[in-house]
Amino acid sequence: MTAYAELSAHFGRVAALSNAIGILQWDNDAMMPRGAAGTRAESMALLHVMRHGMVTEPRIGDWLAAAEAADGLGDWERANLREIRRVWSVETALPADLVEASSKAVSACEMRWRQARAEADFAGLLPYLAEVLKLQREIGRAKGEKLGLSTYDALLNDYEPGGRSDRIDALFDDLAGFLPGFTQEALAVQARRPAAPAPQGPFEVEAQRKLGLSMMATLGYDFERGRLDISTHPFCGGADNDVRITTRYDESDFTKALMGVLHETGHALYEQGRPQAWMSQPVGQARGMSLHESQSLLIEMQACRSREFIGFAAPLMRDAFGGTGPAWETEALWRNATRVKPGFIRVDADEVTYPAHVILRYRLEKALIADAMPLSELPAAWNALMRDLLGIVPPDDRLGCLQDVHWPSGGWGYFPTYTLGAMTAAQVFDAACRAEPEILPAIGRGDFAPLVGWLRANIHSQGSLFETDELLTRATGRPLDAAVFKAHLRQRYGKAD
Amino acid sequence: MTAYAELSAHFGRVAALSNAIGILQWDNDAMMPRGAAGTRAESMALLHVMRHGMVTEPRIGDWLAAAEAADGLGDWERANLREIRRVWSVETALPADLVEASSKAVSACEMRWRQARAEADFAGLLPYLAEVLKLQREIGRAKGEKLGLSTYDALLNDYEPGGRSDRIDALFDDLAGFLPGFTQEALAVQARRPAAPAPQGPFEVEAQRKLGLSMMATLGYDFERGRLDISTHPFCGGADNDVRITTRYDESDFTKALMGVLHETGHALYEQGRPQAWMSQPVGQARGMSLHESQSLLIEMQACRSREFIGFAAPLMRDAFGGTGPAWETEALWRNATRVKPGFIRVDADEVTYPAHVILRYRLEKALIADAMPLSELPAAWNALMRDLLGIVPPDDRLGCLQDVHWPSGGWGYFPTYTLGAMTAAQVFDAACRAEPEILPAIGRGDFAPLVGWLRANIHSQGSLFETDELLTRATGRPLDAAVFKAHLRQRYGKAD
Repeated sequence: MTAYAELSAHFGRVAALSNAIGILQWDNDAMMPRGAAGTRAESMALLHVMRHGMVTEPRIGDWLAAAEAADGLGDWERANLREIRRVWSVETALPADLVEASSKAVSACEMRWRQARAEADFAGLLPYLAEVLKLQREIGRAKGEKLGLSTYDALLNDYEPGGRSDRIDALFDDLAGFLPGFTQEALAVQARRPAAPAPQGPFEVEAQRKLGLSMMATLGYDFERGRLDISTHPFCGGADNDVRITTRYDESDFTKALMGVLHETGHALYEQGRPQAWMSQPVGQARGMSLHESQSLLIEMQACRSREFIGFAAPLMRDAFGGTGPAWETEALWRNATRVKPGFIRVDADEVTYPAHVILRYRLEKALIADAMPLSELPAAWNALMRDLLGIVPPDDRLGCLQDVHWPSGGWGYFPTYTLGAMTAAQVFDAACRAEPEILPAIGRGDFAPLVGWLRANIHSQGSLFETDELLTRATGRPLDAAVFKAHLRQRYGKAD
Repeated sequence: MTAYAELSAHFGRVAALSNAIGILQWDNDAMMPRGAAGTRAESMALLHVMRHGMVTEPRIGDWLAAAEAADGLGDWERANLREIRRVWSVETALPADLVEASSKAVSACEMRWRQARAEADFAGLLPYLAEVLKLQREIGRAKGEKLGLSTYDALLNDYEPGGRSDRIDALFDDLAGFLPGFTQEALAVQARRPAAPAPQGPFEVEAQRKLGLSMMATLGYDFERGRLDISTHPFCGGADNDVRITTRYDESDFTKALMGVLHETGHALYEQGRPQAWMSQPVGQARGMSLHESQSLLIEMQACRSREFIGFAAPLMRDAFGGTGPAWETEALWRNATRVKPGFIRVDADEVTYPAHVILRYRLEKALIADAMPLSELPAAWNALMRDLLGIVPPDDRLGCLQDVHWPSGGWGYFPTYTLGAMTAAQVFDAACRAEPEILPAIGRGDFAPLVGWLRANIHSQGSLFETDELLTRATGRPLDAAVFKAHLRQRYGKAD
């Protein structure tokens, strides 16, 4: 066997283990009875340690050196070696005891966080969160030393390979300068229009579920390789060729579950569209979290909050719930789907105000990782930034710095990918619609084939063949900037020129 | 750390891996979309190889020798060492490549079997089944050499530790001599009674599900540590403290799902009742498959087809489906729950004719493992035995030798445990009712506490502390024989003395 073949077989086994972990995580979040939590934690910890052992095997270094020196490999194989070296470099930077300590600190902190959030008790969470933060710094430092990156960039790099905070700073400063003023403009435009009544429930869960399933089918989701279930926090997970999404149903507002299903279907289309021949190799994986979020937001925000889509979906919504009257007119449904309303909670935010929530978290986590701010000052710093960026101040930390699980669960460096994803979504959708002018008219007829076909060819099927910048340049003509996203917001929410 | 503590920690990790495998197997059978089969097979093969590696670690031999020589261990610890040595002896007999080859052959054969059964195409299955059989022989031979057992007994030993075919031959020959004549007697008794009409459907699936859930609650199933779902083939699976059962719903006959749920709840009560302190150690596991099947059949056949239970359940059944009229009278429901009718399909068989299906499979698999019969002759041999034992011949192999998944899935040596379980169930239920005369009257009031309390104390909480014969002798006064089972059949189905 050649060194490359050894690596490919080894990382095929890593994928087999990762796929097992993926299904167990899905089960944990969507199916598991409460009393099984302790048993499951033992299994997950064991499998994570096994995976760490597999991707840090000393033989990998020898195989990599030999394979990289060999002739005759194609582009995909070369890119696979690059991705394997990336994973191996990052994982071997971490001593096993740091992996274990972090896993335990995160379990304890997540558990404490559920209570702290319910009681708006930041002080109670503080010692647990301080421990997680300390270990995240150690992890970032260890990886950063190996990769020649700052501590924060080393953490970011896990979610956004090649991502760097100086570039994010520039992109986010651009947005942060634009958004406060633009939000006021959008609110003023909205206020001048007659009020759009919202459909009144209750909306039966089974009818919501059927509508969601029919929309998934419309988008081209492959039910032979996935399923739709319920969980407290909607997600897309599972395994290769087994891409499962979840949602939650609110009987008073069917649009939450519906838009959630469309969002997760965007993630799922990416996962189901990864190249089959490289499905279980590192080069066959999705190209980072900002690209992933771009695919969900492209479907949810760009495509499915368009007038064209709402025009197609309105009669289906009316049929699903027996809706009649002004609230069910297409224009009213569209206005409700694009309503701007500054609020405290990130996951409930609209397209215009969402970036402020992310920029705030990004700035705070960077300062905390750099030890430039004491953790105890987080609530005050959070509230000050909310006032600066959105003009509102949460009444307590439940609606403030305790709302998200990311920090307690060790996901430091993840937040910026949400807004990078929103900007990427705008840029990719714009490029797709220029290349295929039929895309939006077809969506108006419920035909997503032109859009999804373009995404398959230009994004999904490319896996991790290219780095993010090159993938985006090939697809849209240039690396990421804020211009198209701002133009999109102006066009949808701003005053007419 | 003492050698015993090392072993205990190591087998705790084995349990964490086994629990992961258990949930993935449940998912495979109850949740997985079809297109994920290939991906899942890779994951399952990897985890099985990893588990094999863990239970064959060379250090285990040293730890066992040291721990067995140490003083101061209690009965449970000593029994745990016995069970660890049992697992270790069996697993070290197998080379890892045989484990992997078998796992892959089984995946391929199971997949092919679904199609072959649908098309009644034994010839199409033959090469796949031949491969599985060949590997099962190799596995049995390797284990048999290590344990000093015949090839068949070595396979049987995996499901029924300590089980031996010469004893099963004697028990089954006894039954095979009794049953054909007794079946005719039971049919004659039945024919002399007035016909009992059966409730007419359709019976809504959701109403069936609710009735099943309420019966599970009545029996004392712990929903905090399990769940009820749907699968093609009902089973009880999952993990420690995560005991999941499945059923399937037939809208024309609600009793199939209901009796299936009661059966699987019997298995689940055993799993949920295993000793918590030893839950993840070998000594804390259920004591073999005949004991396991005894617990499901004790609930389904002994307790829940009694006149007492049907008397309690009849009004609940009427309420669930709005049933009225003669078919819903308690006596008619009981007569339908105890109807004898020779048929082709094992899983649909009644209590009287079921053993014939098992004896047939036991004799055939013994001959096939011993290479005393070519696999190609299986259909003809099957049909000949059906004629001898039940007096009927299936019109095709779908209703004959293709009906069960056990052989394609590598479960050779499993079948006899069904009828050993039926005999054990009769013997245990008889002992329980003698010890606690309140058991049957309480069941008539929907109170299972006396029965389940006795089972908890005498069977479930004992785990694998004793060998099967000793456990049964402690619970019932003697090792297994056919006498109580035959007496039970005579009493319920025979002519009055």
